[in-house]
Amino acid sequence: MNMKNIKLTIQYDGTNYSGWQTQDNAIGIQQVLTEALERVTGEPVNLIGSGRTDKGVHAYGQVANFRTNTRIRPDKLHYWLKPELPDDIQVIESQEVHWDFHARFDAKSKIYLYRIRNTERMHPIDRNYFELVDYPLDIDRMRRASEFLLGEHDFRGFCGILEEGTNPIRDLDRCGIHVRGESIDIEFEAMSFLRNQVRIMVGTLVEVGRGRLEPLDIQRIFQERDRSLAGPTLSGRGLYLMDVRYE
Amino acid sequence: MNMKNIKLTIQYDGTNYSGWQTQDNAIGIQQVLTEALERVTGEPVNLIGSGRTDKGVHAYGQVANFRTNTRIRPDKLHYWLKPELPDDIQVIESQEVHWDFHARFDAKSKIYLYRIRNTERMHPIDRNYFELVDYPLDIDRMRRASEFLLGEHDFRGFCGILEEGTNPIRDLDRCGIHVRGESIDIEFEAMSFLRNQVRIMVGTLVEVGRGRLEPLDIQRIFQERDRSLAGPTLSGRGLYLMDVRYE
Repeated sequence: MNMKNIKLTIQYDGTNYSGWQTQDNAIGIQQVLTEALERVTGEPVNLIGSGRTDKGVHAYGQVANFRTNTRIRPDKLHYWLKPELPDDIQVIESQEVHWDFHARFDAKSKIYLYRIRNTERMHPIDRNYFELVDYPLDIDRMRRASEFLLGEHDFRGFCGILEEGTNPIRDLDRCGIHVRGESIDIEFEAMSFLRNQVRIMVGTLVEVGRGRLEPLDIQRIFQERDRSLAGPTLSGRGLYLMDVRYE
Repeated sequence: MNMKNIKLTIQYDGTNYSGWQTQDNAIGIQQVLTEALERVTGEPVNLIGSGRTDKGVHAYGQVANFRTNTRIRPDKLHYWLKPELPDDIQVIESQEVHWDFHARFDAKSKIYLYRIRNTERMHPIDRNYFELVDYPLDIDRMRRASEFLLGEHDFRGFCGILEEGTNPIRDLDRCGIHVRGESIDIEFEAMSFLRNQVRIMVGTLVEVGRGRLEPLDIQRIFQERDRSLAGPTLSGRGLYLMDVRYE
């Protein structure tokens, strides 16, 4: 057997998709990629992503892997995929990896970016790529609140409905708030995240920045594990999966 | 009579339109705006734009005017328009102007921006908003060439097919090349431009940056008035109408 395990690094504009997975009326990025891989390899393909991204969420560095008998050189496969993919999805790298590599189970850390435009209105060009926050934000307050998010906590107050048996403990390694003109970029790094966790953490930081919550309320939300105490779930359009790290 | 002349300042993402004017199979921005104004005012509307923009071209500050009997306060009209417009077109300001104001004839200068990403590949998010140039460019050469473009010239070598009787003399006031990371932004200001002029000037500057033309070739193209000596017409997706100035 010369079956190979191939790792792909993927970028996409999530605007027109239901997310990584196909849902309801819209197609998922995973399905579009799988069908393109099946056309290129001539085989059925089981594509394993590092994790789901939601509707409208974008990626600079999503990672997936699949096993194949194809004779196409693994490091050239992404060139073969190009004509088979729509122009809002591109595979920027393909490489052979160890037979046991698993894009989800082996991920050591993920980096997400959330992009806000803090201004009265956005240009239409930005409408699918930023969250608009049209009231003033106190960035210092947001930074103080962000420090309480760091480390290991029970994040049940900061996530959507979890599947039965999901461990709600997560360990947030990094939360950096970068301001440039009207843009506020908030970067998160953790081994993994719960459902909607980034969007709710940002929604909560925005409530702190606006003065509706205090930085110390973050601690109370951890103690009470009560989702209703945290801020709103912001939209997927401001969210980017930047990188998935392995080894 | 209390008929008023109203000036609108308009922003749009041109990706899904045939340009300012309706053409062939796609609808134009002018038509979408006209229909929205007719719904809001309850009258037929003749909307006069400062000039056309081509397919895929975007605007941060397009200007148009129309005359109306509406009793809606002119400075509030853009709020009424908001629910009537798709999310890729927005009117950011409306104001009553002198009865004789004409968005096209009274324009004193226009500012266009052309945006290039000079890199091997673009993220899919950038695909409708930048021109990709995937070979190295010598910015100094481009700047030297740009200086030859300034001032009053017969721009027949740098434009598309002109309508009968169009005066090919134009006076370029400004051509600034701004580099930030992988982005090259080229800004132009003139009282008016010929058809495709900005896209061909940029296509020519890129040929100079690449080494296929010399900065001095700009002078030769002015002398020979021969379109075939200049560079290609770059795509509309990198082009932005930034501002139209009056008085």
